[in-house]
Amino acid sequence: MIRNSSPIDRLIDLMARLPGLGPRSARRAVLHLIRKRAHLLTPLAEAMTEVAQTARECLNCGNVGTSDICPICTNEARATGLLCVVEEVADLWAMERGGAFKGRYHVLGGTLSALDNVGPEDLRIPQLLRRIGAENVTEVILALNATIDGQTTAHYIADQLEPQGIALSSLAQGVPIGGELDYLDDGTITAALNARKRL
Amino acid sequence: MIRNSSPIDRLIDLMARLPGLGPRSARRAVLHLIRKRAHLLTPLAEAMTEVAQTARECLNCGNVGTSDICPICTNEARATGLLCVVEEVADLWAMERGGAFKGRYHVLGGTLSALDNVGPEDLRIPQLLRRIGAENVTEVILALNATIDGQTTAHYIADQLEPQGIALSSLAQGVPIGGELDYLDDGTITAALNARKRL
Ligand SMILES: [Zn+2]
Ligand SMILES: [Zn+2]
Repeated sequence: MIRNSSPIDRLIDLMARLPGLGPRSARRAVLHLIRKRAHLLTPLAEAMTEVAQTARECLNCGNVGTSDICPICTNEARATGLLCVVEEVADLWAMERGGAFKGRYHVLGGTLSALDNVGPEDLRIPQLLRRIGAENVTEVILALNATIDGQTTAHYIADQLEPQGIALSSLAQGVPIGGELDYLDDGTITAALNARKRL
Repeated sequence: MIRNSSPIDRLIDLMARLPGLGPRSARRAVLHLIRKRAHLLTPLAEAMTEVAQTARECLNCGNVGTSDICPICTNEARATGLLCVVEEVADLWAMERGGAFKGRYHVLGGTLSALDNVGPEDLRIPQLLRRIGAENVTEVILALNATIDGQTTAHYIADQLEPQGIALSSLAQGVPIGGELDYLDDGTITAALNARKRL
């Protein structure tokens, strides 16, 4: 074929590996990028290079940013004693878009899963238990997805925290059965946060 | 918000401008890229930089590649006297994937449109008329989309070529009403090419 091993072909192959894009949409995206070279392709190449060089996980909470400790963890105004536990960084970002939560986060990096052989030590659960004492946490909000694995993980964490006498709550009103946090609108997240129920 | 004006935020904003991606899928794509930094983000940044520096339109036919004249136009084996006229580069690539066409192409760069004020001189129609004589073209295949604008453009080109005594054909069998070439499977394109009807 004509395009084999050309840089354009390589770009299409790489773009097709992004979630949400297949070969056809990757081809269309690349033609679009070439048409918008100055306004989109070059800025995108530069932004990717910069993110590849600077992106890192917060050593404290697992948020993704450009510093070893993220702005939320270094912001003393957010040391409210509230710690919101989420599965993924996308969920943290969804909570922040809601704008209602003023405490800090802990990103587990997934859920417990017997099927996929994911145990507590494969997630940031040991770090979570350490933070409880170190940061004077008074309440842990379990903002996990309403899936079987999400709820299994919530119960496991609740069992671990029970002896420590920490208040535990979960997002309640508004999270639909089987729903994933990152797909909810901001108002629903805010409502679920405000109506959180004690466990 | 926490992510304002960070390189990650800028990357999300730029990704959201790609066709087929919105803000949510851009966020998910960027988190995926950061997780796959070595295997996807860095290679993608490099491929984009290279394409931004090397991509150009073929001066003869409008195909997109990395040379002033594309490999199809320089390949003497493809000087068969057949010239296939398409709207966009994506259509040329779709024809090539079909693998049945051994001639050359001419990419118009769109269709005539009274509504959008697109006239013949806004497309590569003058260049098309020049190529007919210069390249000893014996048959022009109008492989335009089965849309109103596509068919209007086909009729306009047919009228222009009529005095020159060139054989004219169009893709026939298999192109659905209202269908766009780039969305057809390869077999359908091959069937439409083989069953092309004289105008
Ligand atoms: Zn952090
Ligand atoms: Zn060419």
